[in-house]
Amino acid sequence: MIQPWPQIESKIIGRFRIFSLRSDLKKSPRTGEPHEFFVIDTVNWVNVVALTARQEVVMIEQYRHGTNTIELEIPGGLMDAGDASPEATGVRELREETGYDGEGVQIIGRVFPNPAIMSNTCYTVLLRNCEKRHPVDFDQTEDLITRLVPLSEINQRVTQGEIRHSLVVAALYQFQLWQGEHPIK
Amino acid sequence: MIQPWPQIESKIIGRFRIFSLRSDLKKSPRTGEPHEFFVIDTVNWVNVVALTARQEVVMIEQYRHGTNTIELEIPGGLMDAGDASPEATGVRELREETGYDGEGVQIIGRVFPNPAIMSNTCYTVLLRNCEKRHPVDFDQTEDLITRLVPLSEINQRVTQGEIRHSLVVAALYQFQLWQGEHPIK
Repeated sequence: MIQPWPQIESKIIGRFRIFSLRSDLKKSPRTGEPHEFFVIDTVNWVNVVALTARQEVVMIEQYRHGTNTIELEIPGGLMDAGDASPEATGVRELREETGYDGEGVQIIGRVFPNPAIMSNTCYTVLLRNCEKRHPVDFDQTEDLITRLVPLSEINQRVTQGEIRHSLVVAALYQFQLWQGEHPIK
Repeated sequence: MIQPWPQIESKIIGRFRIFSLRSDLKKSPRTGEPHEFFVIDTVNWVNVVALTARQEVVMIEQYRHGTNTIELEIPGGLMDAGDASPEATGVRELREETGYDGEGVQIIGRVFPNPAIMSNTCYTVLLRNCEKRHPVDFDQTEDLITRLVPLSEINQRVTQGEIRHSLVVAALYQFQLWQGEHPIK
């Protein structure tokens, strides 16, 4: 049986806007030896699978500062203090980033972005019958272009590496599995 | 068109064993204003889809210190300075973590773990006809249990949230898509 590691002490190393860094000292249940682990703390995240009535996925292109590349992704973002739920965050982020609204918002999955070094959860939220109804409302650092990608092309774009943000790939897999159990008429 | 953000300056904030933290000052191509971005740098990672001749996936259970949970994952790890390639890393990690070896090692996908705040790539490596041929060789901080999971159960375990590490979910999606184009006889 895998045993949890008891914590000896924990301290914040620093805060860096969207995340903070923590050092945890823990004791190995196998050897009894202490080890230090660094953990990145941040709020929970939400990724939005937004489908139009024509079975297109509402996607965005944006510049990403970790990799210095332009990525094809689904909308999403950080849960704000004012967001009551992952569903509310998904509706808000979809609207701000693309101007789209939809129906039947629901959580269809969740993942740990990186359980080795991050503490947070990322929810996958689905909306259907999405339409553009609002102007976009970008953050200072967001330059986004909306792209409608036919659902039938999603697998191919993952295979070809056009969609390569791991959290987006994970959300689209969860959606494909969800759809297998809930065929959309 | 999405424009890249020119960099004004970049500095290392600190090194924390498996990653370091960097601050980049960049200029918005839209507004001309400067913005600071924090980026986590680390080596590239490899995830291994290891199949047995009986169509089982060689998986591991391990304690994860970001989430303080026991996770069902596929083997994988960091590319060492001594690793010539993602394929070599995959073979080494599979052997160290499970004692298994296999055949036909190949890269079947790659993702950015988090292009917003991380600079690195994670490769998905496939091995087939895997068998246990060696003793395991854990790092100081690794307590792992090997689990053979029938390939036919993978989708269900993702849907039910038993497999929930985003990089593992992404790798298994890439494998399912790869398998659709390369049926295993």
